[in-house]
Amino acid sequence: MSNIHAQLLQDCRLLGQFPLSHLLLLKDANYPWFILVPNRDDISEIYQLSEAEQQQLIGESSLLSRLLVQSFKDDKMNIAALGNRVSQLHIHHVVRYQDDPAWPAPVWDAVPAKSYSDQALQQVVDQVREMLGVEEGFSWCDL
Amino acid sequence: MSNIHAQLLQDCRLLGQFPLSHLLLLKDANYPWFILVPNRDDISEIYQLSEAEQQQLIGESSLLSRLLVQSFKDDKMNIAALGNRVSQLHIHHVVRYQDDPAWPAPVWDAVPAKSYSDQALQQVVDQVREMLGVEEGFSWCDL
Repeated sequence: MSNIHAQLLQDCRLLGQFPLSHLLLLKDANYPWFILVPNRDDISEIYQLSEAEQQQLIGESSLLSRLLVQSFKDDKMNIAALGNRVSQLHIHHVVRYQDDPAWPAPVWDAVPAKSYSDQALQQVVDQVREMLGVEEGFSWCDL
Repeated sequence: MSNIHAQLLQDCRLLGQFPLSHLLLLKDANYPWFILVPNRDDISEIYQLSEAEQQQLIGESSLLSRLLVQSFKDDKMNIAALGNRVSQLHIHHVVRYQDDPAWPAPVWDAVPAKSYSDQALQQVVDQVREMLGVEEGFSWCDL
């Protein structure tokens, strides 16, 4: 297993992993905000993955997006690979609503992150557990 | 050919198309900023494309990214599908430099767009023409 950048581990809760990518939940209660981190060393750009890995990545991203839309009933998904501050390849998946604190602006640097209460964080984790429960190929961390 | 949203056509110059996606250059001289618009109607999210189209999209995105990195000698690629304002699926590909006006922040809403001079715009188009010239499967618009 590749290392996940310390900043990502600090900002997120590791939920589990798809065949290629770790799934993390960013601890910002303003938005349901998930991050896929491909389990490969020394990769900062999607094109640096092999062709097969790229196809696996977009498959995992689309599966995650489809499930999030069904479960969280979004107005729009925002998907982005930026990495200006943490260069390890990681792909944001942010569930957006027309009444969220940043809409229609992108979420980055829009408003300060909002802490989850323990209960609210557990509620999101439980919702994701239910959402992903029957998906083959996803392994949960011990939560 | 599907319609490209009027706002995208207003903000961008259409350069040509890959097998799946139109390639546009955003007219903001702050950054070399390109947009892929899959040539499909009524799609606002990547997961709504067929599996084959998703694989084509990530292939086109990675080809474009690899060529941009070689030609524009970036510090980081920023790739994003947001669509909060223009819902037609379009994927930003922004060449970032550590000395660009927004670094390390994302580019959206960071600084006002900067107009290209006719000469500077033509220079970028020429650079892209040279960069993409030998790629099979890319068709140029009449420029």
